[in-house]
Amino acid sequence: MAGNDSLTKRITEQGDKVRKLKSAKVPKDEIAEEIAKLLALKAKVTSEDGTSSSKCKLILKTPKGTRDYGPEHMALRNNVLSKIVDVFKLHGAETIDTPVFELRDVLLGKYGEDSKLIYDLADQGGEILSLRYDLTVPFARYLAMNKISNIKRYQIAKVYRRDNPTMTKGRYREFYQCDFDIAGRYDPMVPEAECVRIACEVLSRFDLGSFKLKINHRQLLDGLFEACGVSSDQFRTICSSVDKLDKLPWEEVKAEMVNEKYLSPEIADKIGVYVQQRGHKELVDKLLADENLSKYQSAKDGLDGIKLLLEYCEYYNVADKVSFDLSLARGLDYYTGIIYEAVLCGGEADGVGSIAGGGRYDNLVGMFDAKNKSVPCVGISFGVERIFSILEAKNTAEKTKPRTTEVEVYVASAQKNLITERMKIINELWQNDFKAEHSYKMNPKILIQLQHCEETSIPWAVIIGEDELKRGVVTLRHVPSRQEEEVKRESLVDELKNKLRK
Amino acid sequence: MAGNDSLTKRITEQGDKVRKLKSAKVPKDEIAEEIAKLLALKAKVTSEDGTSSSKCKLILKTPKGTRDYGPEHMALRNNVLSKIVDVFKLHGAETIDTPVFELRDVLLGKYGEDSKLIYDLADQGGEILSLRYDLTVPFARYLAMNKISNIKRYQIAKVYRRDNPTMTKGRYREFYQCDFDIAGRYDPMVPEAECVRIACEVLSRFDLGSFKLKINHRQLLDGLFEACGVSSDQFRTICSSVDKLDKLPWEEVKAEMVNEKYLSPEIADKIGVYVQQRGHKELVDKLLADENLSKYQSAKDGLDGIKLLLEYCEYYNVADKVSFDLSLARGLDYYTGIIYEAVLCGGEADGVGSIAGGGRYDNLVGMFDAKNKSVPCVGISFGVERIFSILEAKNTAEKTKPRTTEVEVYVASAQKNLITERMKIINELWQNDFKAEHSYKMNPKILIQLQHCEETSIPWAVIIGEDELKRGVVTLRHVPSRQEEEVKRESLVDELKNKLRK
Repeated sequence: MAGNDSLTKRITEQGDKVRKLKSAKVPKDEIAEEIAKLLALKAKVTSEDGTSSSKCKLILKTPKGTRDYGPEHMALRNNVLSKIVDVFKLHGAETIDTPVFELRDVLLGKYGEDSKLIYDLADQGGEILSLRYDLTVPFARYLAMNKISNIKRYQIAKVYRRDNPTMTKGRYREFYQCDFDIAGRYDPMVPEAECVRIACEVLSRFDLGSFKLKINHRQLLDGLFEACGVSSDQFRTICSSVDKLDKLPWEEVKAEMVNEKYLSPEIADKIGVYVQQRGHKELVDKLLADENLSKYQSAKDGLDGIKLLLEYCEYYNVADKVSFDLSLARGLDYYTGIIYEAVLCGGEADGVGSIAGGGRYDNLVGMFDAKNKSVPCVGISFGVERIFSILEAKNTAEKTKPRTTEVEVYVASAQKNLITERMKIINELWQNDFKAEHSYKMNPKILIQLQHCEETSIPWAVIIGEDELKRGVVTLRHVPSRQEEEVKRESLVDELKNKLRK
Repeated sequence: MAGNDSLTKRITEQGDKVRKLKSAKVPKDEIAEEIAKLLALKAKVTSEDGTSSSKCKLILKTPKGTRDYGPEHMALRNNVLSKIVDVFKLHGAETIDTPVFELRDVLLGKYGEDSKLIYDLADQGGEILSLRYDLTVPFARYLAMNKISNIKRYQIAKVYRRDNPTMTKGRYREFYQCDFDIAGRYDPMVPEAECVRIACEVLSRFDLGSFKLKINHRQLLDGLFEACGVSSDQFRTICSSVDKLDKLPWEEVKAEMVNEKYLSPEIADKIGVYVQQRGHKELVDKLLADENLSKYQSAKDGLDGIKLLLEYCEYYNVADKVSFDLSLARGLDYYTGIIYEAVLCGGEADGVGSIAGGGRYDNLVGMFDAKNKSVPCVGISFGVERIFSILEAKNTAEKTKPRTTEVEVYVASAQKNLITERMKIINELWQNDFKAEHSYKMNPKILIQLQHCEETSIPWAVIIGEDELKRGVVTLRHVPSRQEEEVKRESLVDELKNKLRK
């Protein structure tokens, strides 16, 4: 009883909390979580009268950071993914699939501090497993395990991160990654140029506004830091400061370098002169002529690489999309060469950030190989969840509703007791590969049937009636124009082929 | 040192164990596990010399019961799934997606004893989660949570079961389910008939040999048990005995009923007379005329349902595939009406068992609704993993290798230093939506390029050479016939359109 009293008290308190949040208009998903807690508490009371199933009745939500996707979302998502796959296939890519979980040891040591975001499976006896965090590490594990030294593959699958993302911005704990990678020992910048071309092709196929692709080179960054007097053990941390230049002004980035990373202000200023530059071929030439920089082999190698890539980009018709940007650094540790990142330029796109990114990672596969045998790789990963949210927002703004089915013909009956006739007709339509449906009710109202056609944008309706059947005809209705014509029952399929297959 | 000595001892022991298993020829996956343990032990030794990454280098496997799918597997899988989706779309289905994990409470109490096979996530603070076990329970949760009372949806996704499946038979811990369900309050047997039609359409689209679809009705089984004198609390357990009739002879099933479930032999015999019958309409009529059986309302309702379904199957042209089979009982508890199961009949298909199955489940959604509001559902689920294995085995037997890319044109160079020319040509091809690739090497050997075309069944190769380029022509090679012709460089795209788009 005492236990139940304290439960009642907790319910009251939790109820108050939910009401406060609601009146404070905090984001819906935060409230949902508190409501779930409230329902869970209430369920505990109910379950005391012995109805064991009432508990699960009440906790009705998806796990934190995840959501369901209904038919409208799925129509848009599948459409986007299939367009992306079309581009990957245009470039001759194969696809592979790996398990949703990996041995935990495969993932450890690959993501630095972010490892804390990995979802672990419970130890139920047996192996220690974790959900995949991205598709790149499983891909590298796959290559090493199967001793594959060259492949051009794409993989589209969900990955899992125990992050605290703002779901209103379209970021979740379960989300799609969409990767294209070229593994193999090839000549400089030829695979890179194709990745750049693919990024541009994919982004052009959607109505996302204009975009640009920033490129830089890890070796150039290293050489530049060396030239400015940064000690090599600080390359990585200074790199991550530089990476913030897309969001922060130089003064703040400099302050971080000086105050948090104890770089001398002079060195920071030297870096600042370089990393605030962006341009095209002429910038590469200018930097190649820079006496200070060109003394450092890795800076020179990086610049030569960028120069060659920019030349190839011209043959691939994407030079106007590409911008050499010395502030681009990218977070992941494993990059070893060219890195790139696509950003949208339109006004509405502000705050969307990067929409695709990738680069060369030549040493990751070697980490899985007993003899350290490396397989050089370069890849591009699309932020499809961002593409989904942008296109969804656009649909909402333009009040466009994507179709969720592809039904071409609806078979309707105008009077009662015609279900067997409907069945015979729809069977003939299916037989002839028409996407068709009819009501699952014996005697549906004609108005409701026609309304369904209009609401779901089915272009054609076949309407059958007793009188017409006797005369050997059916009514064919063009739903958008509401125009109707009688056609012979036996030539219905041909009529529809004429109308739909032209 | 002592620690390392005992480690050495454990390695020796584990090595012995592996050798024994190998010589005893136990299944490969069991050995693989022991090998993994051995490698893990060995890794511990290596890591003592300070190379921290060596540990993950050595455990190179996918988790137990899972596997990677390389390009050839994926080509077949995607082909199968897309054909199935075509059928679902032919019937106007929408698709939805739900998270790979659910709150554990959503899954509990839905799978009976099999609940022990559910994968749990580790408690990392926050909600208690489990991987989905099937797609039906998440679907029901989705309907209840979103208060959806009618939808026709398909969902293809992976589910997870901590089973000990024989992987050689194509059964895994991570596997695809492929479900089509109709939710909504409709008239008897209209949605059921469409599910039957869909099952037949899907199975006919693959080269699986002949198949039949057994149907039965849960209410008929209940009425039949009642009529034979089984007490209602034993319906379920007797039902599960009956379900074994597809694998065991009647005598053994009877023995189980009598010896393990303490049914009197007389009652068992009465059941035996009924459940060994199979047939079509005439059997329904015979049973409707059975005075003992027809006294029981639920038997009569079941028979009426089957009669109507068989009639509808005629209109849907699938009556010849359907067999009324009183021994079909199906495992899951949640079925409330018609149940069906497709089996292959061919000789090679022996042991494959059911390849699709489903039925009506009217009360599952209500289990998630606070007010117990039910949404009647009926669905069909395809055992796609079995379809994959059958078709893969067929490919292996016939030495058919499915193409893993769709490349139409390969751009090859016959001499050195032509990479920029190759790039210009391939760019034009991509621009015109030709699936095309070229070598990522600067100066690939012509023989290796042509060999690649033959090995991967690329139908056309464009070969460029210095002399030809000067003359404004390129060589177009038809790879299968090895016939070559010269075409003008500027009309290359049109020539290829003629050859490929006809």
